[in-house]
Amino acid sequence: MSMDFGFDVISDAEYERQRALYGPLTESVRRLIDAGLHTEVDEDTVRDAQDKIDALTALLESKKRAVTSTLRHEATGRPLAWANPAVGLRNAIAPPMIIHHEDDGQCWSEFTLSGAYEGPPGWVHGGICALVLDHLLGEAASEGLTQPKFTGTISLRYLRGTPLGPLRAEAFVERSEGVKTFARGYLKDADGPTVEAEGVFIRPAWARDAG
Amino acid sequence: MSMDFGFDVISDAEYERQRALYGPLTESVRRLIDAGLHTEVDEDTVRDAQDKIDALTALLESKKRAVTSTLRHEATGRPLAWANPAVGLRNAIAPPMIIHHEDDGQCWSEFTLSGAYEGPPGWVHGGICALVLDHLLGEAASEGLTQPKFTGTISLRYLRGTPLGPLRAEAFVERSEGVKTFARGYLKDADGPTVEAEGVFIRPAWARDAG
Repeated sequence: MSMDFGFDVISDAEYERQRALYGPLTESVRRLIDAGLHTEVDEDTVRDAQDKIDALTALLESKKRAVTSTLRHEATGRPLAWANPAVGLRNAIAPPMIIHHEDDGQCWSEFTLSGAYEGPPGWVHGGICALVLDHLLGEAASEGLTQPKFTGTISLRYLRGTPLGPLRAEAFVERSEGVKTFARGYLKDADGPTVEAEGVFIRPAWARDAG
Repeated sequence: MSMDFGFDVISDAEYERQRALYGPLTESVRRLIDAGLHTEVDEDTVRDAQDKIDALTALLESKKRAVTSTLRHEATGRPLAWANPAVGLRNAIAPPMIIHHEDDGQCWSEFTLSGAYEGPPGWVHGGICALVLDHLLGEAASEGLTQPKFTGTISLRYLRGTPLGPLRAEAFVERSEGVKTFARGYLKDADGPTVEAEGVFIRPAWARDAG
């Protein structure tokens, strides 16, 4: 298990090129996930679609990037996290969340959760609320993932159901003590908070040794 | 926003037919998600793949099931939760987890988390650990989703990093007090627990009124 946080720096132009290319591809895979959830086409059509998906997978896998290093954006110094399951531009599992960092350290994101994130009928799965808030609190605690920080503990209080549809998440650092950073955040719909989160994020020992 | 937990009961034969048809389709979409994460094929090939994905989405969407009711398995009485983002056989976002229910109420699942669930390099995203444990504790608290229960609070303690690969999750009910059910669970790798979770699950008011 490598714990190497090696980075390849990419220029703004290359960043924009890849974003314009892979963003729409991933959006298409998201729509395919939704279509697969509810389709009732006949069995032969399902099997034919599956064969075609397998052929596309083989084509895309015919040339793959090495996954041993993370891309870092030259202009901002931030890792791209394009494979991340919460924010990844290239990960169809992610909504994705686009994270905004304010000068005072607060982070926020506005995004839409479709039926693919549903738990009880009409409501977001409680574990998806946890994924969203764990990620956003981690962004706040790690100054936009520029500092290596791992979740130590996180506690979530579900105030009411979170409806599918447009949502906003916010997080900020309350205080730091030694290797621990205490963060707090909220998931909100148009009527206010639906879930509140408190987390403690920890700088790992190997990063402490490195200074 | 419907809060109707209406169910369509399906027979064991129909359950098996749909499982055999849609399980492999969803597995193929999961492999496509992974392929899309890391592909470096040339731009024309990416755009051509995207067009073909869009065509498959349109085909699968040409006939869709109504999403106003949930399927319930006749033999077990349990809802299928095939669209669920943690356990859904038809949801490519889900690993999926297959949940085993013991006679004493304990639940467990063994599953594999691939690179699509990665946070820090080599490790499962903390929010994905939270998704997995929120779901499993909810299964234990709701007796296999046969009782309507919502997450009230959940607290997660990250003991160490959770490696990508084969994992096991376990959950059980510690006690119940009125409308509250207290559950506990663990995420484990081959060396033991990596994350511990405690949750309080609440029977909603509308279900209390219904008896």
